[in-house]
Amino acid sequence: MIEAGIIGGAGYTAGELIRILLRHPEVSLNFVYSTSQPGRPVAQVHQDLLGETELEFSGELNKEADVVFLCLGHGNSKKFLAENQFSDKTKIIDLSTDFRMASGDHSFVYGLPEFNREKVKEAGFIANPGCFATAISLAILPLAKENLLKDDLHINAVTGATGAGTSLSETTHFTWRDNNFSSYKSFEHQHLNEIGESVKKLQPDHDSEINFIPNRGNFSRGIHATAYTGFSGSLDDAKLIYKEAYKDAAFTFVTDEDLHLKQVVNTNKCLLKLQKFGNKLLITSIIDNLLKGASGQAVQNMNLMFGLNEKTGLDLKANYF
Amino acid sequence: MIEAGIIGGAGYTAGELIRILLRHPEVSLNFVYSTSQPGRPVAQVHQDLLGETELEFSGELNKEADVVFLCLGHGNSKKFLAENQFSDKTKIIDLSTDFRMASGDHSFVYGLPEFNREKVKEAGFIANPGCFATAISLAILPLAKENLLKDDLHINAVTGATGAGTSLSETTHFTWRDNNFSSYKSFEHQHLNEIGESVKKLQPDHDSEINFIPNRGNFSRGIHATAYTGFSGSLDDAKLIYKEAYKDAAFTFVTDEDLHLKQVVNTNKCLLKLQKFGNKLLITSIIDNLLKGASGQAVQNMNLMFGLNEKTGLDLKANYF
Amino acid sequence: MIEAGIIGGAGYTAGELIRILLRHPEVSLNFVYSTSQPGRPVAQVHQDLLGETELEFSGELNKEADVVFLCLGHGNSKKFLAENQFSDKTKIIDLSTDFRMASGDHSFVYGLPEFNREKVKEAGFIANPGCFATAISLAILPLAKENLLKDDLHINAVTGATGAGTSLSETTHFTWRDNNFSSYKSFEHQHLNEIGESVKKLQPDHDSEINFIPNRGNFSRGIHATAYTGFSGSLDDAKLIYKEAYKDAAFTFVTDEDLHLKQVVNTNKCLLKLQKFGNKLLITSIIDNLLKGASGQAVQNMNLMFGLNEKTGLDLKANYF
Amino acid sequence: MIEAGIIGGAGYTAGELIRILLRHPEVSLNFVYSTSQPGRPVAQVHQDLLGETELEFSGELNKEADVVFLCLGHGNSKKFLAENQFSDKTKIIDLSTDFRMASGDHSFVYGLPEFNREKVKEAGFIANPGCFATAISLAILPLAKENLLKDDLHINAVTGATGAGTSLSETTHFTWRDNNFSSYKSFEHQHLNEIGESVKKLQPDHDSEINFIPNRGNFSRGIHATAYTGFSGSLDDAKLIYKEAYKDAAFTFVTDEDLHLKQVVNTNKCLLKLQKFGNKLLITSIIDNLLKGASGQAVQNMNLMFGLNEKTGLDLKANYF
Repeated sequence: MIEAGIIGGAGYTAGELIRILLRHPEVSLNFVYSTSQPGRPVAQVHQDLLGETELEFSGELNKEADVVFLCLGHGNSKKFLAENQFSDKTKIIDLSTDFRMASGDHSFVYGLPEFNREKVKEAGFIANPGCFATAISLAILPLAKENLLKDDLHINAVTGATGAGTSLSETTHFTWRDNNFSSYKSFEHQHLNEIGESVKKLQPDHDSEINFIPNRGNFSRGIHATAYTGFSGSLDDAKLIYKEAYKDAAFTFVTDEDLHLKQVVNTNKCLLKLQKFGNKLLITSIIDNLLKGASGQAVQNMNLMFGLNEKTGLDLKANYF
Repeated sequence: MIEAGIIGGAGYTAGELIRILLRHPEVSLNFVYSTSQPGRPVAQVHQDLLGETELEFSGELNKEADVVFLCLGHGNSKKFLAENQFSDKTKIIDLSTDFRMASGDHSFVYGLPEFNREKVKEAGFIANPGCFATAISLAILPLAKENLLKDDLHINAVTGATGAGTSLSETTHFTWRDNNFSSYKSFEHQHLNEIGESVKKLQPDHDSEINFIPNRGNFSRGIHATAYTGFSGSLDDAKLIYKEAYKDAAFTFVTDEDLHLKQVVNTNKCLLKLQKFGNKLLITSIIDNLLKGASGQAVQNMNLMFGLNEKTGLDLKANYF
Repeated sequence: MIEAGIIGGAGYTAGELIRILLRHPEVSLNFVYSTSQPGRPVAQVHQDLLGETELEFSGELNKEADVVFLCLGHGNSKKFLAENQFSDKTKIIDLSTDFRMASGDHSFVYGLPEFNREKVKEAGFIANPGCFATAISLAILPLAKENLLKDDLHINAVTGATGAGTSLSETTHFTWRDNNFSSYKSFEHQHLNEIGESVKKLQPDHDSEINFIPNRGNFSRGIHATAYTGFSGSLDDAKLIYKEAYKDAAFTFVTDEDLHLKQVVNTNKCLLKLQKFGNKLLITSIIDNLLKGASGQAVQNMNLMFGLNEKTGLDLKANYF
Repeated sequence: MIEAGIIGGAGYTAGELIRILLRHPEVSLNFVYSTSQPGRPVAQVHQDLLGETELEFSGELNKEADVVFLCLGHGNSKKFLAENQFSDKTKIIDLSTDFRMASGDHSFVYGLPEFNREKVKEAGFIANPGCFATAISLAILPLAKENLLKDDLHINAVTGATGAGTSLSETTHFTWRDNNFSSYKSFEHQHLNEIGESVKKLQPDHDSEINFIPNRGNFSRGIHATAYTGFSGSLDDAKLIYKEAYKDAAFTFVTDEDLHLKQVVNTNKCLLKLQKFGNKLLITSIIDNLLKGASGQAVQNMNLMFGLNEKTGLDLKANYF
């Protein structure tokens, strides 16, 4: 059994990790580290776990764990690792932004298995991609891989309230968010950086614009993204490129059916649909922001790192309605 | 024009008062008093007012105002009035619980116009009823008026998230509340006190139990209540009693149609439906918790106090869908 | 008093018209014509009206009415007018698409008051704009008016479930729509036609692309739209252009505050925000699809046609939370 | 492997069964029978299954299947079994009401494992309990088992829109249900019959009233129920009775924590909380109406019938937010 630990246990991504790892047939959840509430039953915070686990938050780290997931606020992972030394064999999977930029001074591999599977398998340290970055990268990287991102990209995506974290704020108050809609950080969302790097790695000469408008939806989880750009080939050409790109993907599928977000909610899947209008290719992409966009993908990376089937523990029943 | 002031301007009930008073043909909204943000445009806080008003929060009181509405936290109205003296002509309408119990040492009239219209007209000080208390009192007081509340009452009601106020808390976080449901303060909700007093005033010998389970619904506004008790008469007898009780009511109607909450959302109405099952009378009651359950009823009281038509400024278009 | 009639009374737009006209101080709602349910109380269908009106659907037309609103399915207005002749003085306001294209063979004026006020005042027949068309036109026409729509436009907008009409379908079923999101009719929405015509009228040499992706949101009402395009001036230049364009507008306002949909829900307002990123101008536009996007704008047009203040009967309290 | 078939494949309960059985380690989903759409891919109807299965609806029955689940409308199971004969070894699990009343002329066992485990294990035919009946029975049967249901019961419960089935109706239209609340079938819900029978089996002398008001909530799935009645013992006495009743239960847990519906959504669990007020015992009970209230419990029964661990294939990750 793989001995796993989680650092920072109260947030959404930690909660989802706990839910997944408690059911993972090859994992023993060794500790959930919390300096603020050691000794408190995990099921008191993640209250759906009532009746399922007696696990308590721990104030102690097991530095010999096989794998450790960092669920800390952005900026805190780097700090935490500077202050805490794990054993040589301990693999680290970081869910923050801290090590996502390959250009930084570190040895973390960007954990997008669809494009990095072999590197992930060999990695000791994984920077788990951002949620928007995952939905969008899976929508556009097959084009970059074929050197076909020539024109500007126009991307619009909407995320659920879990995307904003557990902290209370005006825009996560129920009376504000209920039946509401708004955009934010237009053209300037931080995930544009990691998307840009991923594109450049596959298509080094890329120099067109990536325009991105993120939105806040009045639902709890999921990301729905549309992206379009000039594409001179036919729709069939495009489908061939995408199906080839994802022929080995465990969770990413290209379909001809119309998509709607709830097809993937509570699963680790990404569904993609391609359409052609005039000279434009439109790609629609949907994921669950907390699973394929965070904790599910983290476990997918763990599976690869430990030589397991990529889907182990991740064959999740959708919450379709 | 009636010069009106509001004390405490940031909450839901203050917001609704501002929206109503700005449109009230007989009122000039003189000031919205806020010690924390004097000078800030009201439309920056109540953002739907953008383009409608240049009003700013004021750090000064106009102690000569014709009417002042207190939108302070429970417990703070008493304190505020002890520290601030208004002119003799200034009428006070308090939306907190502070003066609702008639048994207290004060001269406030309980502002439920359906049962207190004449006293309200003469009053200088009004204790505006609580939201649950309004929905439930309107459901059961016609029976008390006829001395017919003999058996135990069984009441279940659900309120929207605005019922919990603007402060951020776990249960008002969107990700918690969305698609959720829960009960709280069963048998012990504070509004039971004012309901009990209202019953006793009409039926002094009342001594059966009033059982009440309040619930949190995953919607923003409105209260839906059901109440049942033994009733030996026929359904027609009951309808007669209720129609008689509300024959002069401006906003409270008895109907034979099935009810659902959105019939009254964003209005000052209360709709009631009666049904008889065996020896039990079931009364369903719906109101908007912020209007008939708070700010709308406050303005209704103001209208009565100033000799206006009760409905002035309160003929609001429902937000039916 | 203006004698008004409504043709086709069961849908959302008819419901909103009834709600508005019943409260309009200068209008007497003369009849709501329904061939399918004559004699049925209007409040049995629009159930929030219970206690407010005794009006019944009528199987008879009053062909001498001062104004008639057509709330028929797209395609049916033309047919209805061919079969039913009103008096010469009767003004017609059609809410369908049937007469929106100026290029058709008819005498209807496109009822977007912000750009057509003088023509609307003189008109006998009005084609009331579509909901998406209103939100988007108000976002982009100030640029067209100044001949500044040179680059491609990229528009993304989301509408509530009322946008799909009252008929039951998979995508309006609660269990499908709740917590869901999806796009549809990308690049091919029918409102692109009327938007294109409006642009051409103001900027005849316009020949860049208008790309539009519509989305279905999991809320009941409202449209949130973002539009961006190249703009060589400064942000202040843009603001000047928009403030000038809307200096006389009764319901359309330009603001520097962040926008979110509920600021306009249940009102006839349109709020616009401008931002500049690099060489791009981003315009965010929000309206209530049933009011400014349909019935509210229809009454606004009626007010202009009868020489009333544009806002009469339309100063509606928002349903902000 | 257990060869399983499903009769009637388009509804919610069939969809949940398919999702569960496709992942069940001991089951091979042999056929999903549909006379209306044979040959159509199952993933076109249950669209979250895209990428997971190539299964098609079948127009043929396998009469030698090990187990067959009937997901037909109420009244149709009896008819279907009269017209279709399965092999002697084929076990039948019926999700309709058709065989729930023990008093009927049939050999079906009522499949509430918490109180019928041994009989279920031996059964060839199971009548799977109703959703409200499950939530309520689990709340009150421990008292009946101890002969303690002496006073009247007062029950209020709310169900999600999936409780109304996939057919389109006014009350399942998004614009109606969104942010709405209503009660229906008060005192007369059909599940009162099976609840009454279950009580009588455990406490034959029971003759007090069971009052039940069901409600429609504006969420998709789950049931939240409160039930109270007179109870002369202490709270600790009550807890002891319930903990004893559920000491072997695989999915039903008694807790001291406050409950809210989302703790059980997308799981097969039932959580119960006990409180004492004066002489009254209040029991709160929450389940997922489609899982513990339908398809999950059906698979739980199947597990018992085939000698498997009760939890096989049912250890589902909650959709907690």
